[in-house]
Amino acid sequence: MNGSPTIGFIGLGIMGKPMARNLLRAGYPLVVLNRSRGPVDELAAEGARAAATPREVAAASDIVITMLPDSPDVEAVVLGADGVAAGIRSGALYIDMSTIAPATARAVGAALRERGVDVLDAPVSGGEKGATDATLSIMIGGTDAAFARAEPILRLLGKNIVHVGPDGAGQVTKACNQIVVGVTIEAVAEALALAAASGVDQVAVRAALLGGFAQSKVLEVHGQRMIDRAFTPGFKSKLHRKDMNIAVNAGQEAGLQLAAAALVRERFDELLARGEGELDHSALRTLYDTPVKSASS
Amino acid sequence: MNGSPTIGFIGLGIMGKPMARNLLRAGYPLVVLNRSRGPVDELAAEGARAAATPREVAAASDIVITMLPDSPDVEAVVLGADGVAAGIRSGALYIDMSTIAPATARAVGAALRERGVDVLDAPVSGGEKGATDATLSIMIGGTDAAFARAEPILRLLGKNIVHVGPDGAGQVTKACNQIVVGVTIEAVAEALALAAASGVDQVAVRAALLGGFAQSKVLEVHGQRMIDRAFTPGFKSKLHRKDMNIAVNAGQEAGLQLAAAALVRERFDELLARGEGELDHSALRTLYDTPVKSASS
Repeated sequence: MNGSPTIGFIGLGIMGKPMARNLLRAGYPLVVLNRSRGPVDELAAEGARAAATPREVAAASDIVITMLPDSPDVEAVVLGADGVAAGIRSGALYIDMSTIAPATARAVGAALRERGVDVLDAPVSGGEKGATDATLSIMIGGTDAAFARAEPILRLLGKNIVHVGPDGAGQVTKACNQIVVGVTIEAVAEALALAAASGVDQVAVRAALLGGFAQSKVLEVHGQRMIDRAFTPGFKSKLHRKDMNIAVNAGQEAGLQLAAAALVRERFDELLARGEGELDHSALRTLYDTPVKSASS
Repeated sequence: MNGSPTIGFIGLGIMGKPMARNLLRAGYPLVVLNRSRGPVDELAAEGARAAATPREVAAASDIVITMLPDSPDVEAVVLGADGVAAGIRSGALYIDMSTIAPATARAVGAALRERGVDVLDAPVSGGEKGATDATLSIMIGGTDAAFARAEPILRLLGKNIVHVGPDGAGQVTKACNQIVVGVTIEAVAEALALAAASGVDQVAVRAALLGGFAQSKVLEVHGQRMIDRAFTPGFKSKLHRKDMNIAVNAGQEAGLQLAAAALVRERFDELLARGEGELDHSALRTLYDTPVKSASS
């Protein structure tokens, strides 16, 4: 093939649109598809070509990337009628950058490999800002050969790019990441709530804890958000709820009852039940705003 | 008074002995007391004077420091028969560096203040190594005047010395610290267990997570311990269990049901029930060694 390979990009949401734009700006011919029309028109105005179905995207592309909300979306877009699998060429490369269940990633990957396609699961973290600035962390599962093919493209999207292991390893790593981030947010929320309810300055507590083993990026960033009551996302609680569910289920499939992950999934359920799923995940702190009884000390 | 003030030091355990030694080496006249005789003899050989009761220690000292295992110990040593309160001079300074319940710290402090004594609660973190190397983190509650008096001495014991707030604020901050450390250890244990049970390399997962929002000192240090199965303390599980209990109870007194803190207290109970309370707190990881059922993926 001459020149840059054509990239098909499906899913132009908050994350997908700036990622696709970064590929376009780097000079890759781009074919795009999205459920709503707005972002397609935007990227078309910048030089991308619009397609009508995932099948059409795949048929026109050497590399297909998906960035979709959840496991059923990826299943439908790849394996459904007029899906990616129906159009993709043998020898093509498929990269799913959505955050989905490891089991779904493995099933979708297996179906495409049967068609002679190289497959990677490559979920990201770093949010809209990371997507825009091309500073995402990318956690990758798949063969060395597939990773070598994808690496130059992934380097246009992120900074911390780690090939963790085989098929599904990217999604497992992302699930691990979301467990640690979610549970640590709950930990910091409980600590700062205890300080506040005990009449101790949260700013001083955060500063003291940052100097020792309690130090974390979450204490630094989300702890500050909690103190400032600045719950504009960032990363929405409803999305982290989805990810905690993936993590807890992945644990169950692997024979593990992940206790704190399950607890934090419940905390997010409670926050969503209050209608606050659009708030940043650090809003877990607000669940400790109402004392259960008057203080005895 | 001429020369250095005399310091009374009660509680020469794993932490207390090296702390007392650092004060002795800095040239302070030292009067010591400990339940067992060994450490007293050791420090006496280096120039300290042994006393027979807390009352006697207090009567001979300008500054009294306690470093004891738990709340009842501090209550007994200060307020019991032949306790510190019975011997301490008006105008003396009392510093409790034990980790105890904030409510106990406030009660003991109030009793001594009635006798004209300056009081600080000043629990530490950093373990035996921090105590020996004088690099402890010290979290302090009390008046500005009491803190100003204590500061030169505290600087001989630690590096990260934070005056957080009034009476009890040091113990509240320590409880916050232990919540964050304990719950983060559980988070990292669950993540690494999920990786291992899913057949994904834990070393690669830890490295990938350290690059993003999942970063923490616990992931760095205790995550490595979990991977190496290196559970020699460090900080013993049975002590962290005690601290989680203090934290959960302090929450209840402040009107809060701290969900993850309570869960991690239960996890430590389970570890202790297995007879593994002497292991490092990162041994929470071992509770995920036994899958609950065979893997389905």
